[in-house]
Amino acid sequence: MQPSLRHRLSVAVDPEMREDDGLSPFNRLVVSGILLLILVGVLETEVHVIRRFGGVLEMIKAALFVFFLVEYGLRLWVAPLNPRIRNVWHYAFSPSALLDLAVLVTLASPFLGLEATVFRLLQLLRILRLARLGRYSRGMNLLYDALRSRATELWLSMVMALSLMLAASTLLYIVEGEVQPEAFGSIPRALWWAVETLTTVGYGDVVPVTPLGRFLAALTALCGIGFIALPTGLLAGAFSDAMRQSREERRHRHD
Amino acid sequence: MQPSLRHRLSVAVDPEMREDDGLSPFNRLVVSGILLLILVGVLETEVHVIRRFGGVLEMIKAALFVFFLVEYGLRLWVAPLNPRIRNVWHYAFSPSALLDLAVLVTLASPFLGLEATVFRLLQLLRILRLARLGRYSRGMNLLYDALRSRATELWLSMVMALSLMLAASTLLYIVEGEVQPEAFGSIPRALWWAVETLTTVGYGDVVPVTPLGRFLAALTALCGIGFIALPTGLLAGAFSDAMRQSREERRHRHD
Amino acid sequence: MQPSLRHRLSVAVDPEMREDDGLSPFNRLVVSGILLLILVGVLETEVHVIRRFGGVLEMIKAALFVFFLVEYGLRLWVAPLNPRIRNVWHYAFSPSALLDLAVLVTLASPFLGLEATVFRLLQLLRILRLARLGRYSRGMNLLYDALRSRATELWLSMVMALSLMLAASTLLYIVEGEVQPEAFGSIPRALWWAVETLTTVGYGDVVPVTPLGRFLAALTALCGIGFIALPTGLLAGAFSDAMRQSREERRHRHD
Amino acid sequence: MQPSLRHRLSVAVDPEMREDDGLSPFNRLVVSGILLLILVGVLETEVHVIRRFGGVLEMIKAALFVFFLVEYGLRLWVAPLNPRIRNVWHYAFSPSALLDLAVLVTLASPFLGLEATVFRLLQLLRILRLARLGRYSRGMNLLYDALRSRATELWLSMVMALSLMLAASTLLYIVEGEVQPEAFGSIPRALWWAVETLTTVGYGDVVPVTPLGRFLAALTALCGIGFIALPTGLLAGAFSDAMRQSREERRHRHD
Repeated sequence: MQPSLRHRLSVAVDPEMREDDGLSPFNRLVVSGILLLILVGVLETEVHVIRRFGGVLEMIKAALFVFFLVEYGLRLWVAPLNPRIRNVWHYAFSPSALLDLAVLVTLASPFLGLEATVFRLLQLLRILRLARLGRYSRGMNLLYDALRSRATELWLSMVMALSLMLAASTLLYIVEGEVQPEAFGSIPRALWWAVETLTTVGYGDVVPVTPLGRFLAALTALCGIGFIALPTGLLAGAFSDAMRQSREERRHRHD
Repeated sequence: MQPSLRHRLSVAVDPEMREDDGLSPFNRLVVSGILLLILVGVLETEVHVIRRFGGVLEMIKAALFVFFLVEYGLRLWVAPLNPRIRNVWHYAFSPSALLDLAVLVTLASPFLGLEATVFRLLQLLRILRLARLGRYSRGMNLLYDALRSRATELWLSMVMALSLMLAASTLLYIVEGEVQPEAFGSIPRALWWAVETLTTVGYGDVVPVTPLGRFLAALTALCGIGFIALPTGLLAGAFSDAMRQSREERRHRHD
Repeated sequence: MQPSLRHRLSVAVDPEMREDDGLSPFNRLVVSGILLLILVGVLETEVHVIRRFGGVLEMIKAALFVFFLVEYGLRLWVAPLNPRIRNVWHYAFSPSALLDLAVLVTLASPFLGLEATVFRLLQLLRILRLARLGRYSRGMNLLYDALRSRATELWLSMVMALSLMLAASTLLYIVEGEVQPEAFGSIPRALWWAVETLTTVGYGDVVPVTPLGRFLAALTALCGIGFIALPTGLLAGAFSDAMRQSREERRHRHD
Repeated sequence: MQPSLRHRLSVAVDPEMREDDGLSPFNRLVVSGILLLILVGVLETEVHVIRRFGGVLEMIKAALFVFFLVEYGLRLWVAPLNPRIRNVWHYAFSPSALLDLAVLVTLASPFLGLEATVFRLLQLLRILRLARLGRYSRGMNLLYDALRSRATELWLSMVMALSLMLAASTLLYIVEGEVQPEAFGSIPRALWWAVETLTTVGYGDVVPVTPLGRFLAALTALCGIGFIALPTGLLAGAFSDAMRQSREERRHRHD
């Protein structure tokens, strides 16, 4: 017996119904649509782009609105075939479907006259959709397992980093606070410098000028190496172990 | 026979008396208190915050003072139940308890009229309390073991880094010393630039301008990659090995 | 029977015909020639160098033209001895040979009066020749295998990095957009800041000034640590595994 | 039979004659002397220090001169006891002994009236003495072996980094050369920016301003992550393997 159109659509639309690895051609299109959606959302905040390509952007948004409306309808229709979903309403009120709906409303918003600031915040929702990509891959689990296996150590290195950051900013507040009250006049202000330095970003908008301040800043910058090396080292070891384990498990299954 | 209140309190208050992993509910509260204490200490150095929320901060500090006074009293009372502690005085003069007492004095200091600079320095003591968190976790041992197993190599890479830093600052002192006497007029001055560059912080307050100076600076910046890669690589290998060893030991215990 | 001159030349010129590891003396010369060619290409864009050493550069370019013309001729002559190449025309129209020809035309271009901008773009072609070095080494395969074995995870960490970058720039566009319209007035503008910060480059030409903006920027900079640690950790584990595997394979071959 | 004074001195002075691990008490003193020597050399370039502590520095230098003269004499005396050294002259003309002699001359230079610039260059020689520390440790061999085991890959990643750097600077020279001729007017000038960006130092003295230039710079900065991740990953894997191998070898010796 041939599977019905609805069954075939379910396999194409719902990644959980698909047996093969990777994305179905339809979901590749969806991913491209999401990426285009985000690109449009980013570009339409720039006045120069709006002035030149405003019409084109509106057309793309209209097309994307139609595309995502069809996708939303299809997903509602095939959702009950997934044994994990009880009925259409169960799916319609899932966080994932509500996010999809919110994005559809955002896309239609220029016609509804939504205010600019709210619209700006809703851009973030569109970006969150990208996270849906993660669900498609087993690699995500590997990353997640590796992070979890070293959770205690990563947490501890974060606490050590925080302590270092507070110690550095307190010291520079004491040493440079009088000389540069605007930049080091309080610990929260000095923290801006400490984060800049320990992460090795170093914008250079706030820099110690006294010899003692520079000496302490140099020590802080050197500690910044460990600040990067510690989590990197932990993750490197974790990934190496996670990979070996997943390979051994696969070998056991073959035996 | 039911354990007495003092025994039950001892298990809740003293992490060494607790058999389970992790923190007791009481100690979770203590950790939150310490974090709040540090936050208040950081915020009250900022004039804008004092002006607006000065009263609230004083109230929080008063509440924290009472809380930590009670905690200090409880710890004194239950200390003798810990077989490692001889008597109350043995505990009271331990570095940990003295630090707790110092923090209590700091908290009461605004009423005592302690001078601002001394108070600023005592902020660091409060931050040091965070280190007490480390004792609660086995992860700390793993980090420590990993660092110790590569102590020689980490030490050597530090010596190599120091040599590189001195070589770079000497060269730039020779090349740029005449052109920018303020920034490169002596090796200690040039060292500020060398640390900035090798740690890849790069504030940009001090930058070579001659072609030869820039060529040497470029070489230094490229060496900075190795400067980060060497300790990171060492730590990564060390963590990977430490984890494997601890897992094998656990497996041996189970056999 | 002695191998003919053409056969001996083939072994010297074509790295695929050589049985030993490493480069033949002739190909070492070719590599030196390519490096000299790139150095000349880089230097002749600088007016100060042209003014002083213009004549010398032209002479070097003429010599390199003759050298690479001879090399091109030799490769054409011995190409058919390589069993993978059908005939001279098959080789002459291979991408590698066409690139060599293009470089020869570039070298002759000053005599032909090629325009400056086109010439500038063709510099890149010369640099691409360096990639030919990769073919000479087995190490390249190790690097490539290591990258491929973690392709999914590296891809995912790129997607996560992109999301983080977009989230950070959207937030700073909302928070700082009104205060600094030139730097944060649109998401594409804020993206320049986000890339600078997450990669820890931190030029400092664009820096948040509001307290909330700085708080978000500090969070972004701290996430930048993970931004570097994740791919580094993945690569470290991958290289470690690739090396072990290649060593085990070699051991199996010896048994 | 008691070993003679000369034999006992040989064990104390020559690290190759010592059977125990680590430095002899005498050589600990030598290392401290070298560090003090470098510190003095660094400090005496700063006018402010000379003005205040000039007399003290001269006294320290005189004391160090006497100390290193005695050490040099002792080493000459005990050198022939080392089976690797044929006679006193063989040792006296070894690079290590000549460097020691050069440092002695440098220390005596203020009395000889050596010119300032030559003196500055000789500071580097003193710093090179630190490298002698490496000989004292087995850790150095581990670092060296790890680096050598990945020599091909590290070399390749350097070539890839160079290509990337040249490609980035060529592109920015084409795009920004007209707008900022001082910073991007030639490829060597643009290289300064490329090194700054790829190493994530980011001084900010040279920054692209056109949208296309910034887009290319963002791509370059993102590639800079791989620029750091590749060698770090290689070293991490190499150190992990080198440690395991040295541990296995030690275990085999014990069996």
